[in-house]
Amino acid sequence: MSFRALFYPRAVAVYGSVSPGKLGNILINHLVQWGFPKVFAVNPKGLGLNHVPGYAKINQISEDIDLAVIASPAATVKEIMTDCGEKGVQAAVIISSGFSEAGNAKGEAEVKEVASRYGIRFIGPNCAGMINTYSNLAPTLQAYPPQGHTAVISQSGAVGGAVMEWAQSHGLGISKFVSYGNGADLNQIEFLRYLKDDEETKVIALYIENIEDGREFMAALKEVTAVKPVVVIKSGRTSTGQRAALSHTGSMAGADAVYDAALKTCGAIRVESLDDLIDLCKGFSYLPRVLGRKVAIVTNSGGPGVMTADKAEELKLNVSESSAELVAELRDFLPAHAGFKNPIDMTVEGTGDNYRRVIEACLKEFDAVLPIFFGPPYLPTMPIAEGILAAFKGNNKPVFSAMETGLHAAESIKYLRDHHLPNFPSCERAIRTMARMAEYEEYKSKVPNKKSVMPEKSKGLLFERGPLLEPDAMKVLEENNIKVPEYRFVTDKSEVAAAALELGYPIVMKVVSPQILHKSDFGGVELNIKNGEEVLAAFDRIARNSEGYDFRGVVLYPMLRGGREVILGLTRDAQFGPVVAFGLGGIYTEVLRDIVLRVAPVDRPGAEEMIRSIRTYPILKGIRGEKPADLEALAETIVNFSRLPFLYPDLAEADLNPVFAFPTGVIVGDVRMVRGNKE
Amino acid sequence: MSFRALFYPRAVAVYGSVSPGKLGNILINHLVQWGFPKVFAVNPKGLGLNHVPGYAKINQISEDIDLAVIASPAATVKEIMTDCGEKGVQAAVIISSGFSEAGNAKGEAEVKEVASRYGIRFIGPNCAGMINTYSNLAPTLQAYPPQGHTAVISQSGAVGGAVMEWAQSHGLGISKFVSYGNGADLNQIEFLRYLKDDEETKVIALYIENIEDGREFMAALKEVTAVKPVVVIKSGRTSTGQRAALSHTGSMAGADAVYDAALKTCGAIRVESLDDLIDLCKGFSYLPRVLGRKVAIVTNSGGPGVMTADKAEELKLNVSESSAELVAELRDFLPAHAGFKNPIDMTVEGTGDNYRRVIEACLKEFDAVLPIFFGPPYLPTMPIAEGILAAFKGNNKPVFSAMETGLHAAESIKYLRDHHLPNFPSCERAIRTMARMAEYEEYKSKVPNKKSVMPEKSKGLLFERGPLLEPDAMKVLEENNIKVPEYRFVTDKSEVAAAALELGYPIVMKVVSPQILHKSDFGGVELNIKNGEEVLAAFDRIARNSEGYDFRGVVLYPMLRGGREVILGLTRDAQFGPVVAFGLGGIYTEVLRDIVLRVAPVDRPGAEEMIRSIRTYPILKGIRGEKPADLEALAETIVNFSRLPFLYPDLAEADLNPVFAFPTGVIVGDVRMVRGNKE
Repeated sequence: MSFRALFYPRAVAVYGSVSPGKLGNILINHLVQWGFPKVFAVNPKGLGLNHVPGYAKINQISEDIDLAVIASPAATVKEIMTDCGEKGVQAAVIISSGFSEAGNAKGEAEVKEVASRYGIRFIGPNCAGMINTYSNLAPTLQAYPPQGHTAVISQSGAVGGAVMEWAQSHGLGISKFVSYGNGADLNQIEFLRYLKDDEETKVIALYIENIEDGREFMAALKEVTAVKPVVVIKSGRTSTGQRAALSHTGSMAGADAVYDAALKTCGAIRVESLDDLIDLCKGFSYLPRVLGRKVAIVTNSGGPGVMTADKAEELKLNVSESSAELVAELRDFLPAHAGFKNPIDMTVEGTGDNYRRVIEACLKEFDAVLPIFFGPPYLPTMPIAEGILAAFKGNNKPVFSAMETGLHAAESIKYLRDHHLPNFPSCERAIRTMARMAEYEEYKSKVPNKKSVMPEKSKGLLFERGPLLEPDAMKVLEENNIKVPEYRFVTDKSEVAAAALELGYPIVMKVVSPQILHKSDFGGVELNIKNGEEVLAAFDRIARNSEGYDFRGVVLYPMLRGGREVILGLTRDAQFGPVVAFGLGGIYTEVLRDIVLRVAPVDRPGAEEMIRSIRTYPILKGIRGEKPADLEALAETIVNFSRLPFLYPDLAEADLNPVFAFPTGVIVGDVRMVRGNKE
Repeated sequence: MSFRALFYPRAVAVYGSVSPGKLGNILINHLVQWGFPKVFAVNPKGLGLNHVPGYAKINQISEDIDLAVIASPAATVKEIMTDCGEKGVQAAVIISSGFSEAGNAKGEAEVKEVASRYGIRFIGPNCAGMINTYSNLAPTLQAYPPQGHTAVISQSGAVGGAVMEWAQSHGLGISKFVSYGNGADLNQIEFLRYLKDDEETKVIALYIENIEDGREFMAALKEVTAVKPVVVIKSGRTSTGQRAALSHTGSMAGADAVYDAALKTCGAIRVESLDDLIDLCKGFSYLPRVLGRKVAIVTNSGGPGVMTADKAEELKLNVSESSAELVAELRDFLPAHAGFKNPIDMTVEGTGDNYRRVIEACLKEFDAVLPIFFGPPYLPTMPIAEGILAAFKGNNKPVFSAMETGLHAAESIKYLRDHHLPNFPSCERAIRTMARMAEYEEYKSKVPNKKSVMPEKSKGLLFERGPLLEPDAMKVLEENNIKVPEYRFVTDKSEVAAAALELGYPIVMKVVSPQILHKSDFGGVELNIKNGEEVLAAFDRIARNSEGYDFRGVVLYPMLRGGREVILGLTRDAQFGPVVAFGLGGIYTEVLRDIVLRVAPVDRPGAEEMIRSIRTYPILKGIRGEKPADLEALAETIVNFSRLPFLYPDLAEADLNPVFAFPTGVIVGDVRMVRGNKE
């Protein structure tokens, strides 16, 4: 498609009134002001603006037009797009609102139809436009920040605009900006893929409120994060309207947890505020990669050094002690009362030259250095900035500068920025940025191999013969390499004693009926049956409790004991499809909500990561000298379980609760499968 | 003491060189620059500076001097203080360093001795000075922010200085600033108490790294927070050097958790960054109180509105739906496509006048309003600022303005600030500030009554007769209204069967020996003994396992079953003294670290709050239809247990593990008490 026409057009036509204060006027002024050379105005009266010539119809323009920017009323857009198509326009930015966001889905569909007929790709409608600082192109109402290496994709025009504003005031350079509004044609997926290969873009900032096709979004995101970082704000986290009704196990987590799991799986970095977004974009676009967690904190003042070390430890960074060699090197030029161990506290000897020497020395053995400067107003700050910059320029490791942002340091901070070393507004934000950058590198270093774990083809429907009874569900698990206990499905009382004897006492007996879901509440479960007499009595009780229901018999299992009880759940999320949940059984999930979700299917490393990430993981590993649960078998069970919804398209929900995890082996204790609407 | 001389001196003498770039020079320039009228320079050569007269000795000055500001070398300070004492100086600010912080504790003690002889109270040494904007007094090297109602007390000169810088650049008005450095004389406790009654101070910001007398600090803090809020940064949270060695139960939490508990108990608001500190000081000093959690979010753009609502829900604020009346009122002037429910989204109709009308309407039914403004650069922002301010001025409820901080809104933000309405740099920070302000009001509304729960007098030593054996410890609990099971201490095998019969089977038998601490590991515990035969055999086994040790006999209890097992622990913290810990037994504390600490003693509401604040509280309340544990009896047990270290000064540590919490009643299952060094 014609991303070239969108981002590097030869000429642009702007639709909309050129009267002062009107959108067309503002857009043309922006385009001209930021240096785009070929702009034409198109409006009913054919009015131009200053040196921009005006036409009533686009076909009156003799030159080729690649891009149309449309800010005229919604009702006129369809005809404009037709004109554009006839003229050979390849791309459009439709800023006009009044489409699906205002209940006018029909108007939007018509525009889309025209565009598709002529092969025009477009952004919008109802968007805030776009920017490409590398072609001086800014058909937008928003601010125009300096050129740089951060690309911004925003569903919300206002949030995107705010990022442009903040980028401008914080000196964050931007490569491209896209506000895709209603996303009728191009949306975040296309732009992610385009920006992946965009050489001017080192980091992508993404603001989303909702996603239509979660699977495709994840695929695109994974492709990008394997190459460059993506920082995401996903909002609408808690609003009631967005909560999907995940049943049972899944209901313990809202839909936001699914987004969270999806973003995590794809290696995207989720943040919750624009501050964090800006900080990370600064770090990723201006600093070398953070290839480890060892950080040296260099300061001219104890207090901020200690605060920063605290925060670093919390974030699992390693404020490790200086080596003997480093201490010896520092002792050569720092006073005896300095702190040498890390934080390295130069005290009043924090001159520019000492900042440079200490940072250079530290970079030899640390993965990153965080120089802090706090000083009273009478202390000149430029030498400090020069020292920090000199040390940074001479190395290929990241330096997280945190010069205090009072008024008197403004000049120095601008100096750093002008030389492409970002300064962070506080030590805390600097260290937080480092931690997230380190996390991204850790993700990237173990990006799962490309081989998909997605099952190749469906095994067909589960529910062909009506509702799935427990013995059938057990059979499905068995066929998919999930270990179930030996069982006997008995339909008649005369067979029950023999079946029990085959299994060996003690046994468990459960009712089998398509109408009885909550078997325990119903008196449909008998535990710890010890002999033939008890087994017959149990059968009678269950049969009696089932009177008036579709009673198909009972299923017998040997009584399982010991091990640790875990639960596995499967649900289908509206955006992301099948989601698998894992946690320890009972109160751990019910009360402590200690549960982890991942978008299915998960591969072996993914399953292992799930197991490790619950808070109660130590219980599985074994406490007080207990043997660990068989974590390999458990991981394998999760992998196989997570494939089921792809093998059986009509499987809507499944719960394995409990699954017994023994020191050797894992066995499912109970299973429930529910039919979906997707047969 | 002479706080008046310190903060409102009639005249100030500055000791230190007046040469350019020297501290004395800078201090004098600051004092003169900010308008303090009577300044004298004192230095060996008797040099003055500009219009400030110089003297070689303070006694040559004819006027009365209330305050001396000392920035001369450490070695000269003692003599200077003597001169000042002779002259009748009442207060001093000792900026000079080179005292205890540099290993010169002796020099510091000498200065203190002289000061105390003459009745001079002083700040420092090794401090960054002080500011009182209400007397134009700024003997400091730091920035001089505008006058206002935030007082700042800082242990670190650099951090205090940074707060002054930030206050200046963020337009936060300051009443008083004190950097107390080594705190040889005046420290945070005295200043807290002074500022409590300072009419110019509405909120106190406090930066501390360590506290000497935790109990006194807590007392002062409680007095203050009952009147005005205190926002605290406590650093040194994780640094190894600060970790106290809390044993056993207590060891699950570091010393920082004790600080945290202490600050929480006293109603102080702990924050972790200067950003949060500044935000809260802005809120508390410029806005009316936040008397409830209902917030209306008013925006001109959906995205930021949703993000803010998410954050609000996370912070347990109540973004409740607009009432029908409010919707009707808004419909009168907002367009039909606006969002009326809350967030209230005015869309492009977010004019200044609409901001005013919507905020005014919302303030009628919400506790606070958070107006967000995000807009492209072409939109003038002054009308919006005027609208927000007009609505705020007409009401006595808080308005948390969050106008986007891009370059083009700078003028409007300054306008709000000039009219004493703070603007927050992001929606997230605005909503976070509101949540913390609401929390403070909730604390204040239930400040515990003044009656101390501190036991009036000691009951004497526990360990007079050597190590405390389990039966003796049980007796201590019993005497202090903590319920223990019936028990029999049996020293001879001949008595054991009769004792067991008295208690009733099944019983538990435990070894009693001052040398055997870990009874279970030792084979010193026998559970579930069912009859006389078993009881004799158990006695024999325990006696055999104890061969070679000081075997005093066994203690018998009835076997306790059921209920929920909780644990209680007591330790002594170096700064805060006795600390009580509470949690559910077993893995909940060991693996999940679900434990709560409070500085002892705790009163009844305090104990109830402890119980509610563990994550596993739902388990105590009863899940799956179980009866709740007897929370009243549990709270009473915590209260009584927390008094023990005050009744028995030699009690260093105690553990009740487990305590059985039944639906009716609470009974201690096991007790361990350890002697301390404090007899």
